[in-house]
Amino acid sequence: MINKILIANRGEIAVRIIRACREMGVYSVAICSDIDKDALHAQLADETICIGPVSSKDSYLKMDRIISAACAAGADAIHPGFGFLSENARFSELCKKCGIIFIGPSGEIIDKMGNKSEARRTMIEAGVPVVPGTKEAVASVEEGLKIAADIGYPVIIKASAGGGGKGMRIVRKEEEFAKLFETAGQEAKNSFGDDTLYIEKYIEGARHIEFQILADNYGKVIHLGERDCSLQRRHQKLIEEAPAHHVPPEIRKAMGEAAVKAAKTVGYQNAGTIEFILDSSNRFYFIEMNTRIQVEHGITELVTGIDLIKEQIKIAEGRPLLLSQEDVVMKGHAIECRINAENPMKDFMPCPGTVTSLHFPGGNGVRIDSALYAGYKIPAAYDSLLVKLMVHDTDREQAIQKMRGVLGELVIEGIDTNLDFLYTLINHEDFKNGNTDTAFVEKLLKDRKEMPKAI
Amino acid sequence: MINKILIANRGEIAVRIIRACREMGVYSVAICSDIDKDALHAQLADETICIGPVSSKDSYLKMDRIISAACAAGADAIHPGFGFLSENARFSELCKKCGIIFIGPSGEIIDKMGNKSEARRTMIEAGVPVVPGTKEAVASVEEGLKIAADIGYPVIIKASAGGGGKGMRIVRKEEEFAKLFETAGQEAKNSFGDDTLYIEKYIEGARHIEFQILADNYGKVIHLGERDCSLQRRHQKLIEEAPAHHVPPEIRKAMGEAAVKAAKTVGYQNAGTIEFILDSSNRFYFIEMNTRIQVEHGITELVTGIDLIKEQIKIAEGRPLLLSQEDVVMKGHAIECRINAENPMKDFMPCPGTVTSLHFPGGNGVRIDSALYAGYKIPAAYDSLLVKLMVHDTDREQAIQKMRGVLGELVIEGIDTNLDFLYTLINHEDFKNGNTDTAFVEKLLKDRKEMPKAI
Repeated sequence: MINKILIANRGEIAVRIIRACREMGVYSVAICSDIDKDALHAQLADETICIGPVSSKDSYLKMDRIISAACAAGADAIHPGFGFLSENARFSELCKKCGIIFIGPSGEIIDKMGNKSEARRTMIEAGVPVVPGTKEAVASVEEGLKIAADIGYPVIIKASAGGGGKGMRIVRKEEEFAKLFETAGQEAKNSFGDDTLYIEKYIEGARHIEFQILADNYGKVIHLGERDCSLQRRHQKLIEEAPAHHVPPEIRKAMGEAAVKAAKTVGYQNAGTIEFILDSSNRFYFIEMNTRIQVEHGITELVTGIDLIKEQIKIAEGRPLLLSQEDVVMKGHAIECRINAENPMKDFMPCPGTVTSLHFPGGNGVRIDSALYAGYKIPAAYDSLLVKLMVHDTDREQAIQKMRGVLGELVIEGIDTNLDFLYTLINHEDFKNGNTDTAFVEKLLKDRKEMPKAI
Repeated sequence: MINKILIANRGEIAVRIIRACREMGVYSVAICSDIDKDALHAQLADETICIGPVSSKDSYLKMDRIISAACAAGADAIHPGFGFLSENARFSELCKKCGIIFIGPSGEIIDKMGNKSEARRTMIEAGVPVVPGTKEAVASVEEGLKIAADIGYPVIIKASAGGGGKGMRIVRKEEEFAKLFETAGQEAKNSFGDDTLYIEKYIEGARHIEFQILADNYGKVIHLGERDCSLQRRHQKLIEEAPAHHVPPEIRKAMGEAAVKAAKTVGYQNAGTIEFILDSSNRFYFIEMNTRIQVEHGITELVTGIDLIKEQIKIAEGRPLLLSQEDVVMKGHAIECRINAENPMKDFMPCPGTVTSLHFPGGNGVRIDSALYAGYKIPAAYDSLLVKLMVHDTDREQAIQKMRGVLGELVIEGIDTNLDFLYTLINHEDFKNGNTDTAFVEKLLKDRKEMPKAI
């Protein structure tokens, strides 16, 4: 049994995990950097340990200090949340070596799925459809040109170690290839210290559909349905919904089965997400696996009634998964909007500052996950995510209508946010009609010189 | 079709109804008194009409002004919420005469169920079990003594027009009867202008269990399960839960059927609640019907996923009820705590004032219905209810655990509240074990000279 969990994270996800611990009767230990002493997660946990200065590399990414803190506090387990060390195989292994349960998969699995070309190869061997492209790292421009000619333009060059759009380039014509391959490699090197690239067919009109997976330590794997996360800006999700709209039942079923198969093939343990793209002809392709809890996990909780953080902890304790695939019933429709401290009028520049006034909406079918409070000084050093605003209603139309109202009620003063921009998206005819793909937001921004203010 | 609704109420229930209107694409018109111009409901509605001074009798109870406001705004319908004019038969009839839809039953039905001795008689004729006692008003002490001797002590004397504990007395011995009958009559006369009394068997160890009813205009009646509202102080509910714990399935079924039968017998329309008491041997008795939405309706929404306010509006529009009894499935367990502006250390004296700081908890399974905001000046003139804090989880134990954490997170500064007292109740062994009846809170207060502070 796990009695005490150290949460190796900050912000709303740390708060989310602290609340789950509290409900399970498990003690929570927060870590914080100097600047985060007044942060909500540091205030809510049963214990808080300050582990270093503001810079993430000296605090939230500092493995030895985090493990020392866990040992000092007598924590049996560490929950990494998302970002920071959540997909760091070495950290998972280090926890294990120190006799601390890492709430997530083993280092071996993180490694296997974290390297994108290796993950692709694994999926191809398992018979899960992948986007046409290379299995292996592409060694040179010449090799890349040959592969691109084989699969046909447009293609997308991606960094093996990548994420967040870094080291990624879409190539539409052969003559652009050499230059873009080079810049992608440089960017990958700078961002991840690894310039390994691979090439895929670029799929136009693609939607981002991901399946939530739960897998226990005894080989049982189920999925909790899908989320549509197509509304992205520079590969950062803005609005997510569950279930995905306009997916034929047989496609949804096939995708769910492929997701479970993918997780089973790698011997996956704990919560994870299999990301697919779905093209306009409803062909789906595996793109990557996230070996951690996702930012947008809450909408799956709303439609399934299953608490994913509690399930993660139970699995890590070694308990067998009691849920079977038949127990998972999606009810209604949930939407999440990510409110960020950023200014859409200034190219979404992050806007830290002090929250002078705050008013959250409430009522039936509204869920708010946030670490904000009135008077809180948002540090510039970390992610700009402020509030995950979620709604749940009987169907997509009702959920959109509810989100529209809820966005109108939310008040955050003292800082710039993307609230008006989200309001524009939610009210867009194409969103309402489901005519959106992963390029939608960028196209919208390109077409409009200035974003309209919310009415 | 209803296009515009005037909400003849204030506070969190007005906000709740405004939100439902917004989600249905219906325009909302708020009314407010002078002092409520900055109240949240007045800010959130599409239109707000100030209809009079602070005194309720000149504003929220002023029928002619409310109906004039509805006509001036072009509202098709009026939602009365709870309290104020919600159970006023004349107001319902007046709306009808003015061509405005009253979202609730007709005046005739309100009259029939509002008079408690008449409601009892109706239920007896329908074969719904009632507490042994009089059907008719008791004319004199002599007649009362005879009836009390027939049904056996203890008995309870109640005012026919009563509510909120006014004109109510428990009589344990024959020699106390005459005096208590007289004081009950005086109190009833002072409170309601009507000293009509009736007598019932007083049931010790009774629990308050109520069934939520929905009835359309075409004779279809369903129930949405029950709520246990046994935790009361002076007949004011403090904590409610859905479903009720420790009720054998056959008793629950019989109570639900009796509730539907009761509503059918009177030709009920719209949302209503049938209140029962359940004794320690699981015998149940009808006590009264509330012909309006209840304060605690939200916990039924959490476990059924059905939006009661939207259903009320649809029924009032003349739409047939699409739900059937089989569609109503209770999932998990929900609890509500009522946070009031009152001081438990000073005999729960109401404590209006200015909210200087406010922090609401959030996260998975938390619902907050409130009209509070930081800086809001709570007027002394109205009800002391501030926040309806609701949680929803897989079972009762988890829901209690969640509520415990959520109560600990809530911050309301600048005024006194009953938060610590609710924390004490939620953490009480007898509550956790379900060993509570309607006398529990009073006994607890009697036994303790001083309420402990929350840890």
